[in-house]
Amino acid sequence: MSAQAASVAREARAERLGALVAERELDELIVGDLVNPGDAAPGAMANLRWLTGFTGTSGLALVAPSELLFFTDFRYVERARREVVPGFEHVQAERQLVPALAKRLRGRVGYDDAHTSVKVFRRLEELAPDGVELVPAAGLVERLRRSKDEGELAAIAAAAELTDGVYDWIRERGLAGRSEREVARAIEARYRELGAEPSFPPIVAAGENGAIGHHDPSEREIGRRELVVVDTGSVVDGYCSDCTRTLASGPVGEPELEIYELVARAQAAGLEAVRAGAEGVKADAAAREVIAAAGHGERFGHGLGHGVGLEVHEAPRLAPTSEDVLEVGDVVTVEPGVYLPGRFGVRIEDLVVVTEAGCRILSGWTKELVTCE
Amino acid sequence: MSAQAASVAREARAERLGALVAERELDELIVGDLVNPGDAAPGAMANLRWLTGFTGTSGLALVAPSELLFFTDFRYVERARREVVPGFEHVQAERQLVPALAKRLRGRVGYDDAHTSVKVFRRLEELAPDGVELVPAAGLVERLRRSKDEGELAAIAAAAELTDGVYDWIRERGLAGRSEREVARAIEARYRELGAEPSFPPIVAAGENGAIGHHDPSEREIGRRELVVVDTGSVVDGYCSDCTRTLASGPVGEPELEIYELVARAQAAGLEAVRAGAEGVKADAAAREVIAAAGHGERFGHGLGHGVGLEVHEAPRLAPTSEDVLEVGDVVTVEPGVYLPGRFGVRIEDLVVVTEAGCRILSGWTKELVTCE
Repeated sequence: MSAQAASVAREARAERLGALVAERELDELIVGDLVNPGDAAPGAMANLRWLTGFTGTSGLALVAPSELLFFTDFRYVERARREVVPGFEHVQAERQLVPALAKRLRGRVGYDDAHTSVKVFRRLEELAPDGVELVPAAGLVERLRRSKDEGELAAIAAAAELTDGVYDWIRERGLAGRSEREVARAIEARYRELGAEPSFPPIVAAGENGAIGHHDPSEREIGRRELVVVDTGSVVDGYCSDCTRTLASGPVGEPELEIYELVARAQAAGLEAVRAGAEGVKADAAAREVIAAAGHGERFGHGLGHGVGLEVHEAPRLAPTSEDVLEVGDVVTVEPGVYLPGRFGVRIEDLVVVTEAGCRILSGWTKELVTCE
Repeated sequence: MSAQAASVAREARAERLGALVAERELDELIVGDLVNPGDAAPGAMANLRWLTGFTGTSGLALVAPSELLFFTDFRYVERARREVVPGFEHVQAERQLVPALAKRLRGRVGYDDAHTSVKVFRRLEELAPDGVELVPAAGLVERLRRSKDEGELAAIAAAAELTDGVYDWIRERGLAGRSEREVARAIEARYRELGAEPSFPPIVAAGENGAIGHHDPSEREIGRRELVVVDTGSVVDGYCSDCTRTLASGPVGEPELEIYELVARAQAAGLEAVRAGAEGVKADAAAREVIAAAGHGERFGHGLGHGVGLEVHEAPRLAPTSEDVLEVGDVVTVEPGVYLPGRFGVRIEDLVVVTEAGCRILSGWTKELVTCE
């Protein structure tokens, strides 16, 4: 997609959000982080970035069906003029942003109660003009963010391709004899060499560490005949990829091969169940049943997958407790695992785009068990 | 300080916090992020890390004068057992952590209203047993975090020393002919080579870009006779450093030299004013008056400094609007600047520890104008 087409796609976002605001019988919607307004964590800015293109850490938007305001402080005024899509009126605010925002509120105002602190909420209440009613409206932007446009899909596909390349590179360098941490650091450095950033700190978990839920790569040396779970992704133009492969650092035993084959079958069943209209809970069940039928139901302790985009974990969810229904343009992971405490773990994860008939897999790397000595 | 002494110092933190909880007439205090409990941004975990030593992203503590509870989910159970200081009872919770926490609340419970979303707050209210009163208590842990102990000072000093080394290394490599972004990337890579991480993305701002508030390093090539503002720091054992030097990429003109000398004098005046008992507003004024007397009062558009520790911006503040009084053990920056739009900017920033009589400077690099071609 050309830069111009991308900008048009982004302008349409404010329009779609404005329509959703009207549909919810709101006069306005506040978009942006209201925990640390003026100094937000980068991850807290995904909604604002999606809506406006702004990449700084101090910004808020106010969206009404017929008005678009963008607030930032003096540090980011120039960046905002460069990055924010046309159609927004720019308001220069003090560092804390909230007083300038509060002054402009009118009527029934939706706010993101999941990203507004109690403290900032009370300040907003105090400063808002008479007649303003603050209405919890978390998740509205996240709902629209699910459906990725062409430009977003191109960025995610590029990030996934970089990650495929990193698996190639791991295979060439080998695993045995290095520490988990050394491999994880090298993966991070490799992404940076390629001009990207990791989308999260890589997980490298060898042998019994592969069975630990959230293992931090340790000084443990990778042995010569072990399974090694490697979970990694990158960020391109703000969009994330996420991919897990379980590799062998040498010939492994029959139990390892059996579990690998089981997880691969479960993953295939999960992929098979992903299509527009499928419930997240059903897609999860499709993979879970394969693992349960083999007697390992208790050893798959997480959901099947999650959405990926500007954040590495976003809507929708594929899990036993999910209430989401998959739609065309959702980008989700499909990542069953079996974890045998004290022994080893296997997880296989693809990143896919949901289509009418099924899904398109963005993770191109082989799912055969690769031996990487 | 030995590892054992560090652990004793950390155990004493829970005791000091327990005393503060009682003093505020609270029965308990919740410590940790209640915006994304179970999946917090790393920066949101500083209070919990300070209190317990835990480095994961899913954890909460409940502190009562006579009871200490630590909550995490299955992914972090092993890490919590390894990292959390003795004295805490470990509770394994579901991923969202809140139901398990709510069940244990009793009486008047302080919560961090600055790091609790409206949504999570309502869920807490709904799930808490009868008789629980939730009381806003933001800033209690931050108050105690101000006074750094020996182990913390050692980590911050080590981070500051790494940054000094990076300035040496910049001087050796030179600046002219490289792009701002290239230099910024190289600084990040250098920290990683040294086994550390940058504490924030380095700012490298040449010529007129040096006058921009929050300049993102650009593709602009650094010329041969320019001022270049470099603002960078590292993280060692979770603790940050922060240092700014303004370098010359070749011989610069009289106006540049004059402003440099002015900022250096303002910085010396700021350092002079920093001591235990001094008000943040007075220290700021000491530097600001020097700049105002030279007719550039309008060109120093930010506060003189901020606390540094587990976060690169924490309490106290040195600024015209600060209500803080400096204390022994505060670690703060002293960083006046003068920014001439369209021309150039100068900022000089040291990291210092507040002492009874004044301050000890942790940034060892020269404040003479260094030419670095």
